[in-house]
Amino acid sequence: KLRGYTQFRYNRLPSFQRNDDLINEQGDRFLGKNNSFGIRRARLIISGDVHERVSVYLQPDFASVIGEQFNVAILRDWYADIFLDAKKEFRLRVGQSKVPFGFENLQSSSNRAAFDRNDALNSAFRDERELGVFFYWAPEEIRQRFADLANSKLKGSGDYGVVGLGVFNGQGANRPERNDNLHAVARFTWPFLFGKQYVEAGVQGYYGRFNAATGTGYSLRGGNDMVDARAAATLVIYPQPIGFVAEYNVGRGPSLGEGDENTLVASRPLHGGYAQLMYRVDNVLGGSLLPYVRGTLFQGGKKAETNAPRYDVRELELGVEWQILKALEVTGAYVLADRTSSRAPYEQEQGHVTRIQVQVNY
Amino acid sequence: KLRGYTQFRYNRLPSFQRNDDLINEQGDRFLGKNNSFGIRRARLIISGDVHERVSVYLQPDFASVIGEQFNVAILRDWYADIFLDAKKEFRLRVGQSKVPFGFENLQSSSNRAAFDRNDALNSAFRDERELGVFFYWAPEEIRQRFADLANSKLKGSGDYGVVGLGVFNGQGANRPERNDNLHAVARFTWPFLFGKQYVEAGVQGYYGRFNAATGTGYSLRGGNDMVDARAAATLVIYPQPIGFVAEYNVGRGPSLGEGDENTLVASRPLHGGYAQLMYRVDNVLGGSLLPYVRGTLFQGGKKAETNAPRYDVRELELGVEWQILKALEVTGAYVLADRTSSRAPYEQEQGHVTRIQVQVNY
Amino acid sequence: KLRGYTQFRYNRLPSFQRNDDLINEQGDRFLGKNNSFGIRRARLIISGDVHERVSVYLQPDFASVIGEQFNVAILRDWYADIFLDAKKEFRLRVGQSKVPFGFENLQSSSNRAAFDRNDALNSAFRDERELGVFFYWAPEEIRQRFADLANSKLKGSGDYGVVGLGVFNGQGANRPERNDNLHAVARFTWPFLFGKQYVEAGVQGYYGRFNAATGTGYSLRGGNDMVDARAAATLVIYPQPIGFVAEYNVGRGPSLGEGDENTLVASRPLHGGYAQLMYRVDNVLGGSLLPYVRGTLFQGGKKAETNAPRYDVRELELGVEWQILKALEVTGAYVLADRTSSRAPYEQEQGHVTRIQVQVNY
Repeated sequence: KLRGYTQFRYNRLPSFQRNDDLINEQGDRFLGKNNSFGIRRARLIISGDVHERVSVYLQPDFASVIGEQFNVAILRDWYADIFLDAKKEFRLRVGQSKVPFGFENLQSSSNRAAFDRNDALNSAFRDERELGVFFYWAPEEIRQRFADLANSKLKGSGDYGVVGLGVFNGQGANRPERNDNLHAVARFTWPFLFGKQYVEAGVQGYYGRFNAATGTGYSLRGGNDMVDARAAATLVIYPQPIGFVAEYNVGRGPSLGEGDENTLVASRPLHGGYAQLMYRVDNVLGGSLLPYVRGTLFQGGKKAETNAPRYDVRELELGVEWQILKALEVTGAYVLADRTSSRAPYEQEQGHVTRIQVQVNY
Repeated sequence: KLRGYTQFRYNRLPSFQRNDDLINEQGDRFLGKNNSFGIRRARLIISGDVHERVSVYLQPDFASVIGEQFNVAILRDWYADIFLDAKKEFRLRVGQSKVPFGFENLQSSSNRAAFDRNDALNSAFRDERELGVFFYWAPEEIRQRFADLANSKLKGSGDYGVVGLGVFNGQGANRPERNDNLHAVARFTWPFLFGKQYVEAGVQGYYGRFNAATGTGYSLRGGNDMVDARAAATLVIYPQPIGFVAEYNVGRGPSLGEGDENTLVASRPLHGGYAQLMYRVDNVLGGSLLPYVRGTLFQGGKKAETNAPRYDVRELELGVEWQILKALEVTGAYVLADRTSSRAPYEQEQGHVTRIQVQVNY
Repeated sequence: KLRGYTQFRYNRLPSFQRNDDLINEQGDRFLGKNNSFGIRRARLIISGDVHERVSVYLQPDFASVIGEQFNVAILRDWYADIFLDAKKEFRLRVGQSKVPFGFENLQSSSNRAAFDRNDALNSAFRDERELGVFFYWAPEEIRQRFADLANSKLKGSGDYGVVGLGVFNGQGANRPERNDNLHAVARFTWPFLFGKQYVEAGVQGYYGRFNAATGTGYSLRGGNDMVDARAAATLVIYPQPIGFVAEYNVGRGPSLGEGDENTLVASRPLHGGYAQLMYRVDNVLGGSLLPYVRGTLFQGGKKAETNAPRYDVRELELGVEWQILKALEVTGAYVLADRTSSRAPYEQEQGHVTRIQVQVNY
């Protein structure tokens, strides 16, 4: 089975407070000056059951970057699900796949309303993915519920189990491992009917040791192989028609410090989260509309970036997703941001950005 | 729908005037000394209608190069056509696609008789493609005509509209944008029956600002963001059985100068074109034969190359394309060339090259 | 037709004599310290007949590496078979494909029991492949025999002809050619029924000139373009149920020397081979088991690596392949190795490694 989706973006529309230095490399490399059109994601998914007990999911991204070379094909997902029982309630997932940490991390970008994932939980793992072995369990009826919720209208995460456990390299997707030990993750989530509306609540946490990379002028305080651990709570109210999602995580991980320590990487505390309110209106403009507002807070390091810079992010995004067809969605958003730059010397930047995205599903 | 084609080449057959320094990086990286077999193009195309109003066209090339690493998968086309009317006469093309500038640029390499595109018009855009939004209009009957002409026998360009308009980044396919402004292009073409033979005539032009890259020892005269604009005229007589194609463009764009200015990049005038005569003979050698002769002239800069070197190209190519099967074509050509080298210090080189290509269509 | 396979590995299980510096870059980049899970191969194969006389075979690997960037899509096979007769006994293979030198080189990694190919014959060609033109001949009944033997149970090589001849670049798959001359290869092999068991015996050899790459502190003795030639003999007894494979090659090629010459690359003698004994047990543990033992010897240079280091390899691998399903295989092995490191200054390392692999076929 061959499918996929592509996101085309233009982020340079007029705004009330333009700041050309307002960038966000983790979220979208096409922010900031000297940008015009961008392909944010170009996905092709090959999936199928190769046996009643084995299925595969292979997803390269054709909009990846190596240096100045854009649009190179690099892996996202590449895993096999091995079902341990005939009802497919218990399974092992072997390969590179999403780490079960955070609802928005697990939700497909094709289903997310907001342009980019929130910094707070998405800073946990590069590309949300790691190479390892995961165990998932979900009762048959809940598996069906996950499947019913995972679409662009209800915006579910798909089935990452009611219980998810995993061990994995911990240095990020598509990157060399840097130590002999593994990261471990555990997650519990439960989607249930509350009156006429589906609600999902979950908790998750991980622990491991990470090797940060540093450039000239930056150094490690003590050795590498730093503690990298987080715990998070999730609440999702599915948009039927009003929806709400909130997630928050606390922990510690590689990060530059403040003041005198602003060139020293060490394992430091971090915390942050987001809350999003949305409202689904069907049968308008030939499709459905989903206005949303999302606020994000984050204070902590991004370990996957060189020097593990410390971010202070306060961001408010107001947007509307217009689902014209199943195959075609257009999203517009206005973002009010106060965030640390992704580039040394990591200055704090304020500004507004008006963004538009065309998403094609195939 | 999955299809594609591959071109295998060997350019080192004996010729009357061999010159090991005669290279042409834009056309074929396997020219010049220390070369043997080469895969010039390895294409896989995934296309299909995902809705009656939306179709996608995804084409990676598996013979792309990053440094010394050959045969990496990198994008060529990756776009969606969004039809604005039920008859599909009006459409928007969103994504990375060919810029409607020049018939030979738009024609698939699988349909072209000559080994490489002409320097004159192909120097307009790296890989003929840009990321942006294009609008195409063609009446239903002309769309059908474009479709009928686009095959290896008649060698049409496919349907890029009777009218084509577009805005795009302007720094070349798969490359980072370097400014906030867009390039704009417009094209008008009309294929019509002249007696018993199809003829197509067109005009096109574009305007934008380009940021040239310079290496050690080369510099910009004044600032970057240089004017980059061209206008071109096209005449095509489809091979039924005799065919003729001629295109010419004039304009200005980033270029090294001559004499004292031969290390200074500035926006400078350019002009050039080509004319090709061909004759199709069916039912010979189990297939059909297409002998052709093409002459190319070009004087101007190639902005996509570092230092935007100024080229002076005079080239005559005599060749025969043998269409053995729909799946298999063999082309041989003898090229008499007088062209500027693609490598600093950009010397002028003369020589002959004998080339053979096996093309497999799937 | 879309198919493929993926190999996930974990090489850091406990062993009796751990040596963190025991690495083998040609065999598996996930050996040695600072490693955990690895995707060794992630293959997708697109193949099909595009005409009764033309078929294509396109195989990118999605677990290739460019610098620190893992899991990039890079070509392995990309060729067309052009059949010269209706019975398909004679054919030309044009493109990048495996060089017919060595049974284990030609055997798919999905069918091989041992984790990595033997150093002795696999050092002949990077990724076992080259870009060129090959001619294969096999009588119809032997073609059928090759097809019957090529599966995970009998572990055949597939059909590379009874007679195989070829010319090709010689600098390794996916790498620029470095001279104007070609390598040439010839192979003869014959699979026959000996009592109730299939046996295959073959001989092969190649000759060419190779350009070695050197880093700081290393140099070439005399010029580059060094003689690179080998001859090899092969004996295969297919596992029905007991199996045996042995191959040995002698020759000369680019290599560092010993003693005073240990920083000088020149064409030097090499020799080495391996022998493997295996036993197939069907209908156990829900599938079949194949215990095997393989001993490898090699003394000679690996031309494809920078500085063409001279290897002295003595390795014994004891393993069991468990074919649970057609779609799923698990292999465990214990390796006792005494081999030269792949990293300068190329020290000799001894140690044991315990390895596990999950292979998914789709």
